[in-house]
Amino acid sequence: MPGEFDFIDWIRAQSPMTASVPIPPGDDLAALKWDAADLLLVGVDQVLDGVHFDSAVHSPLEIGRKAMNRNLSDCAAMACLPVAALACVALPKHAGLDYAQELYKGLRAAADPFQCKIVGGDTGSWPGRLALSVTIIGRSAGIAPVKRSGARPGDTLYVTGALGGSLLGRHMRFEPRVLLARQLASQARITAMIDLSDGLARDLRHICQQSNVGAIIEAEQVPIHEDARRMSQSDGIDPLLHAIGDGEDYELLLASPDDLARSGAVPVGRITTEKEMLLRRAGALSALSARGWEHTL
Amino acid sequence: MPGEFDFIDWIRAQSPMTASVPIPPGDDLAALKWDAADLLLVGVDQVLDGVHFDSAVHSPLEIGRKAMNRNLSDCAAMACLPVAALACVALPKHAGLDYAQELYKGLRAAADPFQCKIVGGDTGSWPGRLALSVTIIGRSAGIAPVKRSGARPGDTLYVTGALGGSLLGRHMRFEPRVLLARQLASQARITAMIDLSDGLARDLRHICQQSNVGAIIEAEQVPIHEDARRMSQSDGIDPLLHAIGDGEDYELLLASPDDLARSGAVPVGRITTEKEMLLRRAGALSALSARGWEHTL
Repeated sequence: MPGEFDFIDWIRAQSPMTASVPIPPGDDLAALKWDAADLLLVGVDQVLDGVHFDSAVHSPLEIGRKAMNRNLSDCAAMACLPVAALACVALPKHAGLDYAQELYKGLRAAADPFQCKIVGGDTGSWPGRLALSVTIIGRSAGIAPVKRSGARPGDTLYVTGALGGSLLGRHMRFEPRVLLARQLASQARITAMIDLSDGLARDLRHICQQSNVGAIIEAEQVPIHEDARRMSQSDGIDPLLHAIGDGEDYELLLASPDDLARSGAVPVGRITTEKEMLLRRAGALSALSARGWEHTL
Repeated sequence: MPGEFDFIDWIRAQSPMTASVPIPPGDDLAALKWDAADLLLVGVDQVLDGVHFDSAVHSPLEIGRKAMNRNLSDCAAMACLPVAALACVALPKHAGLDYAQELYKGLRAAADPFQCKIVGGDTGSWPGRLALSVTIIGRSAGIAPVKRSGARPGDTLYVTGALGGSLLGRHMRFEPRVLLARQLASQARITAMIDLSDGLARDLRHICQQSNVGAIIEAEQVPIHEDARRMSQSDGIDPLLHAIGDGEDYELLLASPDDLARSGAVPVGRITTEKEMLLRRAGALSALSARGWEHTL
C-alpha cells in the first residue's frame, strides 16, 4: 500500500535542486537563496472541505489549484512576485496516492505559470476531512509592497473586474491578478490594495479600518458579473447585493489618487474622511453593509 | 459572537512592527527583511486531532506548543536558527475565541524563547476536527545547513538523548534541540542530521537512503528512556524495540567522523558502505526493521 514516503519520493522527483533552491524538498527543511534587495513577503491560507470546496463535487486538481491561486491572489494584493510555496495536506484515510498526486498537480498548475516553486510540504492522513493549506513566499522585486493601510481621503476606489455570484463556479477557477497588480503599482500610486476574498463590503472595511478612513461606493458604477444576475434570477436577491456581498471574486480592490481608467481598472467610489462606509444609489446614501462572510469561532 | 476577525485583531495586538518585520500580521502578507548572507530555510509541519494529539485529552496550549516545537525541531535538524513562523488552524465550529487564543499562546510559548516571531496565519472554522499547521522560516546564521545526505562510511552515529515510550506524555512536551544542534555543528563535522519524529529505525533509513549508505546500530549502546521501560511493563514489548521503533522522541540523530563524546551526544552505531540497516545485539546481526510510523494514504 503506498504511503506518505512514496508521495514524498514522487514529489522529490518533480523538484530538482536549482541555483536559487540549493536544498530542494526531501530534507527536514528546504533552503532558498535570497537577495537582500528584496523584501520577503509571506503568508498562509487554507481551503477546507465543506467550506471552500466540496470534495464530493470538485476534483483534487481543482482543489489544489484553488488553494494555490488564493495564495497567489494574496501576492497580487501586495503587488509582489510569488517565488516559492509550501503545501500542507490532511488527507482523509484511504484517499490514495493518486488523489494526493492530483492535488499536487493542481497546486503546480497554478504556480508554474509564475515560476513559483513548491519547495516543501507535509502530508498526513487522518479520520477527518480534507484540509489543504499553502504557504506563499513572495519578493518585492522593485515595487514597495502595497499595504491596506495607506488609503487617503479623496483617493478613487477601483476594482479589476466584475463581481458577484462566484459560487456558481468561478470561485474554483479564477485567475490571480499578480501581473496586473504589478503593472498598476509600477505605473501609478496605489495607496491601498486587497484581494476580494470576503466580498467588496467586508474587504473595503479592512482598508477603511487599517487606513483610518471611510468610503462611498457608487452603486451604478459597481461592475456586476453575469453570475450575480443569474443567481438573482434563482434567489430573488438584487444582483448589486451579490456584487457587494458575495465573496471569492479574487479581483483586486485598490485606492489611488491617480486616474487608472486606461489600465482597465473600474472606478467604484472614493475614500472619505468620515469613518463610515456608504452606498450611494439613485442619489440616496445608505450604510454599506458588510454582507461578506466571516468565520464564527 | 466573536469571529475570525476578532481573533486576528487580538493577534495583531500581540505582534508589533519591528525593524526586521516591517509589515506585521494583519495585511494580505507579512514582510520580512532578509540578510543575503543567510540561506533561508523553510518547511511546514502539521498536527492533527486523533493523530498527533487528542483534543479530548490535551489542552489547546499543549497542542499549540507541540505544533511549534515540531517545527523548531526541524530547524534543529538543519542546525539553523528559527526566525519566523506562520500558523494555519482549522477549528471545529464553536471552539470559541478563548480556545483559539490558547492555541496561539501555546505557539508563542514554544517560539518566544528563540525570539521566533509569528508573522502570519489563517484561521477557519469548519465541521471537521482540529488541524493546526505551522510554517517555519529559519536562517543559516553562519552554519551551513546540515542535510540528510552527507553521511559517509565510517562516520559514527549519535543520538542526543534517551529514546522510546514518548506516547506516555513526552511527545507533547519535548524541548527542540535547536541550540545543541548549533553547538554540535559549530564544533565538529556533522555530515548528516535528522530529528527523530518517526523513530530511530525509520529516520535512520532517510539518512541511509539519501546518503546512499548503510548503518549498524549497536543494541547495547542505544539509550533507552525510562518511558520505554514503563511501556514495556504494560505491553510486554522489549524496551529496545520501543527505543528503536517508537516515534516522537524529537532527539537528534546525526553522523560525524569526529568524536562527540564530550558534547553529551551518545554513540549508537556507525555508517557502513553496504546499503543495509543492521542491528547488532549480543554479537549477532539482524535486519534493523523500520517499525516507525508512516501515514498510509
